[in-house]
This record gives sequence, C-alpha cells and structure tokens, in this order.
Amino acid sequence: MPEETLSHPYLLSSEDLNYDDILKIFKKAKYFMDNIQSVKKFDDLKGVTVGLAFFESSTRTKLSFELSAKRLSADVFSFQSSSSSLSKGESLLDTLRTIEAMEVQVFIVRHQNSGVPVFLQKNTSGIVINAGDGKHEHPTQALLDAFTLHRRFKKIDGLKVCIIGDILHSRVARSNVNTLKTLGAELAFCSPGTLLPRELNVWNVNIIDELDDAVDWADVVMVLRLQRERMDSGLIPSVKEFSKYYGITFKHFTKKPELVLLHPGPVNYGIELDYLLSSYPNVLIQTQVKHGVFIRMALLSLLAKNLGH
Amino acid sequence: MPEETLSHPYLLSSEDLNYDDILKIFKKAKYFMDNIQSVKKFDDLKGVTVGLAFFESSTRTKLSFELSAKRLSADVFSFQSSSSSLSKGESLLDTLRTIEAMEVQVFIVRHQNSGVPVFLQKNTSGIVINAGDGKHEHPTQALLDAFTLHRRFKKIDGLKVCIIGDILHSRVARSNVNTLKTLGAELAFCSPGTLLPRELNVWNVNIIDELDDAVDWADVVMVLRLQRERMDSGLIPSVKEFSKYYGITFKHFTKKPELVLLHPGPVNYGIELDYLLSSYPNVLIQTQVKHGVFIRMALLSLLAKNLGH
Amino acid sequence: MPEETLSHPYLLSSEDLNYDDILKIFKKAKYFMDNIQSVKKFDDLKGVTVGLAFFESSTRTKLSFELSAKRLSADVFSFQSSSSSLSKGESLLDTLRTIEAMEVQVFIVRHQNSGVPVFLQKNTSGIVINAGDGKHEHPTQALLDAFTLHRRFKKIDGLKVCIIGDILHSRVARSNVNTLKTLGAELAFCSPGTLLPRELNVWNVNIIDELDDAVDWADVVMVLRLQRERMDSGLIPSVKEFSKYYGITFKHFTKKPELVLLHPGPVNYGIELDYLLSSYPNVLIQTQVKHGVFIRMALLSLLAKNLGH
Repeated sequence: MPEETLSHPYLLSSEDLNYDDILKIFKKAKYFMDNIQSVKKFDDLKGVTVGLAFFESSTRTKLSFELSAKRLSADVFSFQSSSSSLSKGESLLDTLRTIEAMEVQVFIVRHQNSGVPVFLQKNTSGIVINAGDGKHEHPTQALLDAFTLHRRFKKIDGLKVCIIGDILHSRVARSNVNTLKTLGAELAFCSPGTLLPRELNVWNVNIIDELDDAVDWADVVMVLRLQRERMDSGLIPSVKEFSKYYGITFKHFTKKPELVLLHPGPVNYGIELDYLLSSYPNVLIQTQVKHGVFIRMALLSLLAKNLGH
Repeated sequence: MPEETLSHPYLLSSEDLNYDDILKIFKKAKYFMDNIQSVKKFDDLKGVTVGLAFFESSTRTKLSFELSAKRLSADVFSFQSSSSSLSKGESLLDTLRTIEAMEVQVFIVRHQNSGVPVFLQKNTSGIVINAGDGKHEHPTQALLDAFTLHRRFKKIDGLKVCIIGDILHSRVARSNVNTLKTLGAELAFCSPGTLLPRELNVWNVNIIDELDDAVDWADVVMVLRLQRERMDSGLIPSVKEFSKYYGITFKHFTKKPELVLLHPGPVNYGIELDYLLSSYPNVLIQTQVKHGVFIRMALLSLLAKNLGH
Repeated sequence: MPEETLSHPYLLSSEDLNYDDILKIFKKAKYFMDNIQSVKKFDDLKGVTVGLAFFESSTRTKLSFELSAKRLSADVFSFQSSSSSLSKGESLLDTLRTIEAMEVQVFIVRHQNSGVPVFLQKNTSGIVINAGDGKHEHPTQALLDAFTLHRRFKKIDGLKVCIIGDILHSRVARSNVNTLKTLGAELAFCSPGTLLPRELNVWNVNIIDELDDAVDWADVVMVLRLQRERMDSGLIPSVKEFSKYYGITFKHFTKKPELVLLHPGPVNYGIELDYLLSSYPNVLIQTQVKHGVFIRMALLSLLAKNLGH
C-alpha cells in the first residue's frame, strides 16, 4: 500500500474508512482548500478518466464530483441510462465492462438500488465511489458533513450530534452515523416513530422524542430532507403536522444561539427548516456544499494513487 | 478597477457598456482572432469554472459560449432545468447559491423571463453574463453584430442601420439599438405596425414604412428572425403576407449591391430572407457566428480580471 | 500531402482507405497503446475542436470517440438533435455551417440515414468522420476489428473470416468486407437467405449455409447483432429459430477451440451468442472495445495533420 493512500482502493460504504483514512482525507481536503487560489488547477488525475454514472437524478452531488475531478485535471464523462445502451437491453455489467475496456479507471455511481456500487466494484479492477445507493449509503456526504464539523469544532470526539427527520429511509443518516462514530461523536435520533429504523439496538444511538429536548442536548442538529414520496405515504399524518413537531425554526436558535445546523440539501424550506434560517451564521448548508468539492478532490486524489499512475 | 477591465463586473444589459468598454472588447476580440492559430489555447480562464445555465433552448449561443470558455482553458459545465434539482422544488436562488458555493465564478444565463440575470447578479458575488432574457436583452449578440460592422466599415459612427421585422418582441433589436447608438450609428426600424414597440419616442429611432425605402436609406439591414409563435398570433395577417412585404430577396441586392445584411440566426429561409442569399458575399451571417466566439472570449477574459485571478 | 497523413482528409467509407492508410493507422494506434501509461495525455489535437453529432443514439461508439479526442487534448462538444435548433426548423446544412463558423474543424457523425456524412463533407472544409450511417458504413468499427485481428494473427492476408447473422442491414458487415479484403482476408457470409444482401456477385464473398460448416472453414467468426426491429419483421421465423440455427454456443468452441470470435456489441446474449462465452479467451469483444479508442486516436491524429495545425 502506497504511504498516503487509503485502506481500500474504493469507497462503497462509510465502513470502508477507518479513523486514519478519514483524517488523511481531511488533511488533503484542507490542502486543496488552502492552495486552490494559487495553484488553480492540480495535476493529480491528469490522464485519468472518470465516469459519472448517475442513474438517479442529482444536481449538487453530480456537479460536485464533476468539478472535483476537473480541478484535478481528469477527463470526465457522464453516463446516464437515458442516453445509454441500457435501452437496447444491455445489462449494467456489460456496460461497465465496455466502459472499463476504454481505460476508464474511476466510476462514480449513484443508483436507486442499494448495493449497485458493491456489485460493480466486484466486477471491475477500477475504482468505484458510491455517490448514493438507494437507502443504503452516501459516504462522501458523511465525509463532508464531518469535515464541516471538524473545521468548526476543531475536534469531533465527544461532540453531540442529533439527526432529525426521516432516519428510516435516509442513506445520509446511515453514513453519517458510521463516520461520526468513528470520529468519536455521540449520536441521537429525533424522529416520528414511523420514520425510525427498525433495529435500533444495532444502531446504538440515543433516541430523543421531543425536538426541544434534542436541541437542548445537541451541539449540532443534522436536519434531513423530507422526501416528497414520503409526504403522502401514510408514515406521517401530514406535512403540516410533521413540520410543527420536527421543523427547525428561529425559536430554536433564540433559545440556543450556539447551536450548529447541517442539512444535506436541497432543503424543503417551510417544512424541515424555516426559510429565514437560510442565512443564519450557524446554519452551515453552503459551507457543506463548498467543503464537498474539496473532500471529493481529496478522496479522488488519494484513491488515484492506487492506479499506479 | 484593474486597468484593462470593464466598467461593470458583469454584463446584464447593453447599457452596462460604455463606448470605451465596447472598444476594449473589440480590441481584445481582434487579438484573439489574430492569434488563435498560433497560440491554439489561451490561459485567461485557467482554473475558472464557468456554468452555462440555459433555461431556454439554444444551439448557437450556448455552443459559442462553451467554445469561448474552453478556448480560454476554463472548466465548463452545463446546467439545465431538466437535469436539475428544480424538479425537486428547489428555487432558482437556492440553486445559484449551491453552485456558487462550489467556487463557480462565472454564470452565463439564458432564461425565458426578462430580468432573471439581473436577479441572479444581485444575489451572487460571481460574474453573470446575460445570454438572452425574455424580450429584454441579448447584449453579446449586439456586441458581435457591432464588431462585424466595425470590421467591415472600419467605423460605426454615422453608419445607417435599419432593423427589419418583429422589433416588438426582439431582445436582439433592443440590445443592438443601445450598442449601435453608443457607437454613433443612426438607427431605423422597418416593421408592420403591430410588431413595432409601443413607446417609440423613448427609442428615438427612425421609422421607415416601406422595405424599399429602408433599403434605399440603409448601409446595413439587420433582419430579425420571425418567431414561430408569432406566425399565427394574429399580429401578422399571414406568413406569406409578411414575407411579401418584409422579406429580403435578391431584388434588393440587385438594386443596391453594396448593401450589407446581418441576421442573428437561425434564419427562416423563404420568410424573412431568400435562401439564394445565404451565400451572397454581403450577407454576413456566418461571419457574425465566427465573430461571436471571439467577442465572447474577449468578454470573458476582460470580466475574469475582476476575479483577482 | 504531409508525409504521415492519409489519402483522404476525411473518413466517410471504408473505401477511402487503401492498404498503406490502414497500416499507418495500425502503426499509430500501436504507438498510442504502448505509450499512454507514461505519456498520459497527448497533444496531437490541442486547440482543435471536435463536434460529436450523433443523431442516432449510441453509447460505446460515441464514448469511444469522445475519450479518444480528449486523450489527444481536443476540446469536445456534443451536438444532438434534441438539444439543437433542428427543432426550430434549421436545416442540417445550416447547422453545419453555423458550427463550422465557430472554428470546429472535426465532425464525427452518426445518422440513421445513409449518405449524411458524404453530404456534410461536400459542404464543409472541415474533417468529417463517419461513425455509422444507416445501413451504409461504419468504417472505424471495421478498422478496430481488423486491428484486433492483426494483433492476434500478426497478418490478415489469407485469414478466413466468416460474418454471421443479419448481413443485409449491417453497416458493420459492409465496412468490414471492404477493409478485410484490402488487407487480403478471405470472406464468407453465413446467414438466413432473407438476411443476405441482394447482389451477392458484387460482394464476391463465399456463402456458407450451415453454421457448423462456417465454423469448420473459418479462422474467425464475426457475429453481428440481431437488431430488435428485425426480430419481428418477418425476415426471420422467430428469434428462437434464428438462435437455434445461427447462434454461437460453447459447442462450437468445444469442436474448434482455436476459433476467434468478434462482435461489435452490444451483444444480445442468448440470441446470437451464449452468455457463457462472454469470458472465453478467444472471444475478443472487450479487446475490440479497448482497441477502438486507440484506433480512433490514431485516425484523429493522422487526419488532424490536414488542419495545418
């Protein structure tokens, strides 16, 4: 293993990253952030081709990866099912093998089905990065969230983070729990019972019933997006009801001004978060987006060392 | 203000450009045109990310901006509503802020609604360039038209330019009137009354009723595209009737061979212009397209000096 | 003619390439293949803009050209009818002229109608490469197939190649017959009579009725894709029947293990080819894809010498 690379030559799940891996990524992300103004364009992925395979639509994550790869001088191409041979009945695996034969070495995959990135990694010698798979994982989101907290609080060990909203269906929550625990944070969930994961003993996370108590307890609230398809699924009585009991408003920050808020975006303003909060200093949504690019540059740079390149 | 930059760090309207600005842009465009064969690729936008936000479909303008930015070594990405979070209910402003957080410094915007570029510029510290907004403005089209005339006639001061066709709905006409007046041209409109703008006294432009008289008077005719949606709007009796009275044919060039013709494209051949004219030497449509790339390179290069880059 | 360029400054048909041209392309492709790991990125097309005009959908061919051009440092843009002015009624020719005016020098064209690349080449001073037109030609596929055989057998002169399946509608077959004959191969067809071309005397190719006899005779079988639209066209009794008589299975390789198989992809596994064969060593489908990138790099590099660039 080259000195500066990660434990695994891919990123499929937050569990692929140990404490040292995460710190290496943070260090490299900081390096890129500090030097991008002067260096402008890095050469870490020069001659490397990165394929963006987003089978599920996405603006911010896809763009973040695209810009990250380009700022490292990679060649980037986008591959979507609509413009692909998938309509000709070609299987996902055949498509992977075809693209791989063209010397594409890095695959960034988002798919509505859990497990697709793992399946693809088993069948390629390239590097697969999970950009969100079903309800399973979104490990780079967890990395950028943790990096944002790391820069804000200097250390994450002992930090109290409460995740609020639809935990059950959230790949963001799943990845964040793993990554934040690896870094020593204390975790809690605050959610309607119908949106809590089933096997809570496996998660080993505190449950806080009332939002006010959650805010009291937490240094950080991580507010999840309420997916549209959940809004009329019967799992919540109504959006209005959900918003009343689990939406964050100025009232919470008045009570606890030092509270820090993260949200993976895009935000449903007026549902999980009051629009007036969008520019409140401790609401770090834009900072998360900004950090996302540097985290992904760091990840790509460290993983590319496995290409013998 | 750096020595070589423009009066404003954006281009939202033709009114943002004074005489000196326009001449600076022309000079820089000429420089790029003279040196592209030998230099091949310029570094003016190296490390700068340019976002193309074309909410209204476009081939030539979008491609022209894309190639301009790439020939200056920018990273370019395209952002369209169909592939975006807009379908998830994210507002235009949230999207702008998200993209901006990823260190995208230049936004090139086309939108069916007038005023969108101004709105976006008010909410970003990046550079917004208007690539056409509703019936309002299309300032880079006016620049490339004026540059084409400047190169043909050496000077524009005193040049007689008659704009023909649907002035009322044309952002091209609006921008051209401003830019050409700034450069000292004398302007006229020749159009069915139903397609003339309402407040003609504000425009301070000659009105010429008959096309033959317009050709007699003008050094240059600028023929506008008749939009399909106008064709059966009741504003003209019929396409055939419009074409008979306002379409340019060989007859006009037989009468006045030195007449110069511009058209912003794409042309409805057989309606506003006879197809046989497409290769007539004084019909400068291809030259306009060619100049468009250099004008946009010049604009991007001059505006990018505001990035402290 | 510069020393190292090809007989024609375009590639519209396999007939444009003589023996020396093909060998020049192979030599250059080998050079790129041998050096890509160390050089990473070549400069042959720096400052050149390549337009991909794929009017017919495609994954592998389009991507192969895109990556080839980018690995030579070209600027690449994609042009498709759906996102174009074609919906505004602009003709193909006007579009070509517009794009050409923006100093786009290379056009890679796929179109459902035979003859479109020839038509475009007649109207541009740029370089047109045919990436598949109707039932006419797909010359780069033939080049990469021949290169694959050349590398496998060292020489193609005297090699026995049998093309199997729907010859009648196949541009791949047509181009391969020309290219392989130029290189001295002996050709045969094995196909249902309804899927054989009409004027067999013009083709001057052996006809083998039974697949077993074809396998006996051939050093190489080139299996064509059975197009979906053919499956219920009445030209074959049924897909099952076609597969029974013309599908390649392990049985054929058991009988003749040294047989080499090519397929242009994407494969209909279970119809023209048994899925178990996808990883059989003499089934060179992935190798073809890999070689496709280097062949297209070679072609672009050699043709670009005509740009006086």
